[in-house]
Amino acid sequence: MSKTKLVANWETLQRIFIRPEDDTSQAALLKYMEQILFGLQDFLKENVGITEEAGLKELSDRFRNFHIKADPARRLAEVIRGIIEDIAPRAVNVASPYFIGHMTSAIPYFMVHLQTIMAALNQNPVKLETSKVVSIYERQVLAKVHRMIFSKPDDFYEEYIQHPDSTLGNFVEDGTLANLTGLWVARNTALNACDGFDGVEQQGMAQAFKAHGIERCVVLVSQLAHYSLRKAGGILGIGNQNILPIEVDSSSRMDNKKLLSAVKSISLPGSKTKILAIVGIAGTTETGTVDDLPRIADICAENRIHFHVDAAWGGPTLLSEKHRYLLRGVERADSVTIDGHKQFYMPMGCGMIYFKDPFLMDKVAYHAAYINRPGSVDLGRKSLVGSRAATSLILGSALDIMGSGGYALLIDHGIETARAFADEIGKRPLFELVTAPQLNILTYRIVPESIRDKWERADTDEKKELTSLLNRINIRVQRLQRQSGKSFVSRTTLKRCWREDIVVLRAVIMNPMTDMSIINEILDEQEEIYRQLAEHAI
Amino acid sequence: MSKTKLVANWETLQRIFIRPEDDTSQAALLKYMEQILFGLQDFLKENVGITEEAGLKELSDRFRNFHIKADPARRLAEVIRGIIEDIAPRAVNVASPYFIGHMTSAIPYFMVHLQTIMAALNQNPVKLETSKVVSIYERQVLAKVHRMIFSKPDDFYEEYIQHPDSTLGNFVEDGTLANLTGLWVARNTALNACDGFDGVEQQGMAQAFKAHGIERCVVLVSQLAHYSLRKAGGILGIGNQNILPIEVDSSSRMDNKKLLSAVKSISLPGSKTKILAIVGIAGTTETGTVDDLPRIADICAENRIHFHVDAAWGGPTLLSEKHRYLLRGVERADSVTIDGHKQFYMPMGCGMIYFKDPFLMDKVAYHAAYINRPGSVDLGRKSLVGSRAATSLILGSALDIMGSGGYALLIDHGIETARAFADEIGKRPLFELVTAPQLNILTYRIVPESIRDKWERADTDEKKELTSLLNRINIRVQRLQRQSGKSFVSRTTLKRCWREDIVVLRAVIMNPMTDMSIINEILDEQEEIYRQLAEHAI
Repeated sequence: MSKTKLVANWETLQRIFIRPEDDTSQAALLKYMEQILFGLQDFLKENVGITEEAGLKELSDRFRNFHIKADPARRLAEVIRGIIEDIAPRAVNVASPYFIGHMTSAIPYFMVHLQTIMAALNQNPVKLETSKVVSIYERQVLAKVHRMIFSKPDDFYEEYIQHPDSTLGNFVEDGTLANLTGLWVARNTALNACDGFDGVEQQGMAQAFKAHGIERCVVLVSQLAHYSLRKAGGILGIGNQNILPIEVDSSSRMDNKKLLSAVKSISLPGSKTKILAIVGIAGTTETGTVDDLPRIADICAENRIHFHVDAAWGGPTLLSEKHRYLLRGVERADSVTIDGHKQFYMPMGCGMIYFKDPFLMDKVAYHAAYINRPGSVDLGRKSLVGSRAATSLILGSALDIMGSGGYALLIDHGIETARAFADEIGKRPLFELVTAPQLNILTYRIVPESIRDKWERADTDEKKELTSLLNRINIRVQRLQRQSGKSFVSRTTLKRCWREDIVVLRAVIMNPMTDMSIINEILDEQEEIYRQLAEHAI
Repeated sequence: MSKTKLVANWETLQRIFIRPEDDTSQAALLKYMEQILFGLQDFLKENVGITEEAGLKELSDRFRNFHIKADPARRLAEVIRGIIEDIAPRAVNVASPYFIGHMTSAIPYFMVHLQTIMAALNQNPVKLETSKVVSIYERQVLAKVHRMIFSKPDDFYEEYIQHPDSTLGNFVEDGTLANLTGLWVARNTALNACDGFDGVEQQGMAQAFKAHGIERCVVLVSQLAHYSLRKAGGILGIGNQNILPIEVDSSSRMDNKKLLSAVKSISLPGSKTKILAIVGIAGTTETGTVDDLPRIADICAENRIHFHVDAAWGGPTLLSEKHRYLLRGVERADSVTIDGHKQFYMPMGCGMIYFKDPFLMDKVAYHAAYINRPGSVDLGRKSLVGSRAATSLILGSALDIMGSGGYALLIDHGIETARAFADEIGKRPLFELVTAPQLNILTYRIVPESIRDKWERADTDEKKELTSLLNRINIRVQRLQRQSGKSFVSRTTLKRCWREDIVVLRAVIMNPMTDMSIINEILDEQEEIYRQLAEHAI
């Protein structure tokens, strides 16, 4: 802490708004950047740090200051040191190759530079008057990713890439908002204007039901769909109970037969229920599985239903020549969600939604007198959000630096390592593979041989008890490993139609530094934790 | 361009994920940061750059590449140079003190450092397992701003600052999403569960109307409300036609009498219409005016209606001892929107919503099996968005560095300069002040003396024609000034009940470098543009 009292005055205030031109001040600013870039080294090298050592209670006790002080409390240098010395060691090292529990991972270091340049330019693509070329650049990036998904012919992109009335997609904060946008557009398309009715956007859901002669509308999704789809149902006035989960088959894909029979039973003649959309998942959050997109596309086409694909996770798989076949059928979707901060390895804050039809977003256009005037080319006219960062600068630059080839290496590594991981599970008697990796996510659990034996001879009630015992074992092992702080595998509960809810360990392989030797260490640790538990009788 | 062909291979790929430890590589990374920090100097010093010199058409023609190349196209160094040399000069210099047209402005340089450290840590506060201390830190920042707004007693904050079941507020991408969140919660509170009905979130709007015995629900807002409120009405299934604009009085505030009579006529006994919320604005986008918040609070209290305040712009005025009185009554709101990227001078991407009642967000809680389990302390349980950046690190640090005193200097400068601006308008015969600044925004227009004279003697039809002529003049002058590229004042169209729609010039004073000498230059330029137009007969 500096000894001189810090005071806010006009002179220092002006100084922080003018970038210094003298060498000393420039050197100081650069020194801070050096601390940020390399001072975090230790944080980024050590353990994953979800240790409970410094417990939540203890941490909570340290952050209880609710006063904004009148005078400055700290200088930038002290703030940076504070974050490096005090915050970072108690944050989670998502960049560790031992952190294989969630969809947040290491990012290439150049992403930090790109985020910095975006902040320094401080453009706001909601309107041309605060972004200009950046809005135009954004359209180019959107077209590149649109083409990655939909593979439309060149003349399509030549026509629409800079066509101000068309909207190939949107940048939003995350996949939740992208899914919300997709269903928003689907809702407005299904409940559009008709005789004497201006449209659901204008008059609301209750009036829309009257005008369209229905009493309910629903969205069909896999039971493994992300919870953001239920949330979107709640927000959009559809009701989250009307986001109907369809059971999955033995490979964790939405069961086609059950989907078709649901569609048929809902669409019976005289039905008062309308299906707004069917959602296929390309990489479910919990198991990384990909629904049978071509079949869902058929069903949607036959029944004229909006086809949304949640490819928040799996989308960039399309950059791999080797594995893009896994997403076959995505090009038939009406709308597709992809997250930049997942497998495009970008910093947080880059959800995206894409539309096959460049005019579908006309259904959600808004104007204002000071911007987004009708006829303007402002990107904010058709978008869930208003002001936002120029995230396209990061994605566009990253595509230049990596090439699809660079991304393909990451994708291929993840998928191949996950398969090797699954093989290793098969070799270890303590473990059972629950969902095999279709992309780079797998789930498994600990099933001790003693319980395996009992299972064979157990009746229904006994099986229930054994499942409950297995669940307790897996919860404890996962927690103890997390607390020991060296590595992190997450856990979830899978609802399986053919047996009880089971607790599984969930691994997400996206860090290129996560190799089989690390995975074996993680499995060894889990075995060791289990052995110690067993010795002390669970 | 480097001559060697760039190839994506495993070796280079690994290199970009490991922060280099040797001096040469570290020096290279730091050099890039130096370019970003100081290479943008020229961009940040020269004109505002909304010049049409490089027209949109020409720019659009340059960004028509829709192919993602397989091999890397450019190295990081080339990408940075490209942004500095090619993008930045064609972006908008929102940091110029001559850019007084929108709510985007210069930010203190330390904000760039803070954004960089946030990116380097890459935490995701949706869940504790990807953020840990950062989630706890965020709760502290939320409490500080909550206290700035609601001034609850200390024991309130001592109880709730780290209480895992309470939610004092949310970080979202922008004010649009904050307003959406506010109305989402208001809708769910008004249309909550009742006998045989699970709630609007669960069962949707049409069922909610039946259960609550209503046929319509509405939100009352000033006619000057931001268009995001209409959009929220559309998204939430209320219908944007049911976001009812209340006319403003002569000081551009929502007319209290008209508001009260609207409330009364809607709430007549036996009415089938429910008022979900009344929205007061603390700093309208177009005129910066503040509604009569205490009176609206009274009306809401008397009629038990949710009171939302959109303080996206005006919120930080509360940090100024001198001017906080302008927002009196905001502490009585149920929910309040504030944007960090506006008058907290943060980089883009920091909308916020605050709730007086720390349990009101229970109405929008969602759970999932792998995170946000019931009983967890994950911040993502009650939030419109899911994954997001740890923006609280920037705001919390900025509050430390600036103190409320530092922010007060900025706020006071803006308001006082806007008043001086208005005085100057009064002194110049060519101009007419249309809306006086209550905060730091004012609108005015060019009204040549010849037209002023004619106006005095004109009948209704002639006045209509004169207004239309004035509008054309102001549109042309604003465009020509924008095109000349030296300075930027925006324009909007105000709908006035007592006369025709009028086009006005709109100035937003938030850059501390914008002083009266610059404002006089801008006005001189407008006069000169008008004179030249007049000479050539408009």
